[in-house]
Amino acid sequence: MPTISKGRTPVTFINVFTVAPENQDRLIKLLTEVTEQNVRHHAGFISASLHRSVDGRKVTMYAQWAGIEAYESMRRNPGPAPALERALQIATFDPGMYEVAEIFLPDGK
Amino acid sequence: MPTISKGRTPVTFINVFTVAPENQDRLIKLLTEVTEQNVRHHAGFISASLHRSVDGRKVTMYAQWAGIEAYESMRRNPGPAPALERALQIATFDPGMYEVAEIFLPDGK
Repeated sequence: MPTISKGRTPVTFINVFTVAPENQDRLIKLLTEVTEQNVRHHAGFISASLHRSVDGRKVTMYAQWAGIEAYESMRRNPGPAPALERALQIATFDPGMYEVAEIFLPDGK
Repeated sequence: MPTISKGRTPVTFINVFTVAPENQDRLIKLLTEVTEQNVRHHAGFISASLHRSVDGRKVTMYAQWAGIEAYESMRRNPGPAPALERALQIATFDPGMYEVAEIFLPDGK
């Protein structure tokens, strides 16, 4: 399973899609298909965790890549483009590229 | 270290703060202090991972709690309030509460 550790590598992408609740299931299906069939096979892919908001209004992909170049190479590849275009017909997209600054655990862990 | 697994528990909070780049370090310091000194000691807290965007414009907290009630109990507690108020003087806050819909790993993992 994916793990989170402090530092600059892997590079973390937290991409928030905002969607009407009636389209949340469809957006999850689109992102699942493109990640399963295409994105996860690219060099440098480490993990992706697809999150469904309880209020129905967001879908957030938390993804880890070995480096920025690997992610950009995937984005330049034409494979995922049609699914992402369909996703953007029903959702807005707020991307973010991160390093992990700090990790916090409960007392005694 | 934090791990991500599919399902409704733990409950995942992905809270995105948008900030001017010159205030990113200050926001990270505020959120680090309140999480280290207060939030992580609450019952039901599992983990928090604080993410710094490479472009300087976002800070995203990825947090796992045993349940919604535990998180809401922490938010009602007056301890974190002053730090969160100071954070909101320099940042906007877009909260989200999620379950993990799918996990994707590379081929062979």
